[in-house]
Amino acid sequence: MSRKTMVRPGGRSARVQASVHAAVRELEAEVGREALTVPLVATRAGVTPSTIYRRWGDLRELLSDVAVERLRPDAAPVDKGSLSSDLVAWAEQFLEEMAAPSGRAYIRDALLGDPDGSNAGQCSAYAAEQIDVVLDRAAGRAETAPDVETVLDHVVAPIMYRILFRPDGLDAAYARGLVAGLVGPADR
Amino acid sequence: MSRKTMVRPGGRSARVQASVHAAVRELEAEVGREALTVPLVATRAGVTPSTIYRRWGDLRELLSDVAVERLRPDAAPVDKGSLSSDLVAWAEQFLEEMAAPSGRAYIRDALLGDPDGSNAGQCSAYAAEQIDVVLDRAAGRAETAPDVETVLDHVVAPIMYRILFRPDGLDAAYARGLVAGLVGPADR
Repeated sequence: MSRKTMVRPGGRSARVQASVHAAVRELEAEVGREALTVPLVATRAGVTPSTIYRRWGDLRELLSDVAVERLRPDAAPVDKGSLSSDLVAWAEQFLEEMAAPSGRAYIRDALLGDPDGSNAGQCSAYAAEQIDVVLDRAAGRAETAPDVETVLDHVVAPIMYRILFRPDGLDAAYARGLVAGLVGPADR
Repeated sequence: MSRKTMVRPGGRSARVQASVHAAVRELEAEVGREALTVPLVATRAGVTPSTIYRRWGDLRELLSDVAVERLRPDAAPVDKGSLSSDLVAWAEQFLEEMAAPSGRAYIRDALLGDPDGSNAGQCSAYAAEQIDVVLDRAAGRAETAPDVETVLDHVVAPIMYRILFRPDGLDAAYARGLVAGLVGPADR
């Protein structure tokens, strides 16, 4: 388990995390990420560098934690009235966000400073939670639906694989094609 | 294009690359990768550190190049007599190699020190070349076969996605299931 999973909301530890994350986001915007250093982040966050080293290990692990926070979905998938339409809408948005320069940078950061794999696992868990919402709605409409692992294999995995390894030709039509191959074309 | 693509085989540049790559492999085995430094590699390879910095930028980019070399397939896929059997055999071996601790480390290295994406692209190109051999054989037997991009989406992408983001439950049966979902179960 990564260190951050031991953080209790509201405590000093949570306040330190919030101020350090905020310092990273501000400084990235102001001076660019290449200029980030642990002492710079510490000064902005009002903590000592050793607080950061103790908690995160190094800058790369801190950037990984910040990236995962930024990859957290901020809303439930939209309800378009059918499984295929919901999945198409979700997949198009997922691809758009992840394939954008900021999304690629966050995915990269999340993977790079993640020695135990917990941040990468969290990225996948976010996608699985969103898909679960879509599949639960389909079940409520008595639609036949694949399970979440199948959607991860057929929709999420190809998108993430191509972003990382084979980035040409990634567009909304590609996302729609993946969904259509799994559940048929969107009906509205 | 990355710097290494300008290397002509047989020239001084190729000899430097070969000796530096060999030095990384030897030192990794002898002292472990955490102890690797550019000066250490340079001394072993008989070059100056500035030769390495000029050519590779930093240690991470050098490790990425070495990792891609190690991920290069060393043999054509075995011919089992049918598309489904060939794909199952290839996918099982691909998963076994990539999901092994060494394979995971090479994938990680390849991605991490790869600012322009050329090394990640080379990893995907290796898989595509192997699949092309399998699909060409299938065409020679007049079997109906998907195209290479479809095999990448349905077989390679889920394996690589799960290795990086969702590593539980990766085994030969998982690889067989992916192939069966695409071309039906192996017939021998």
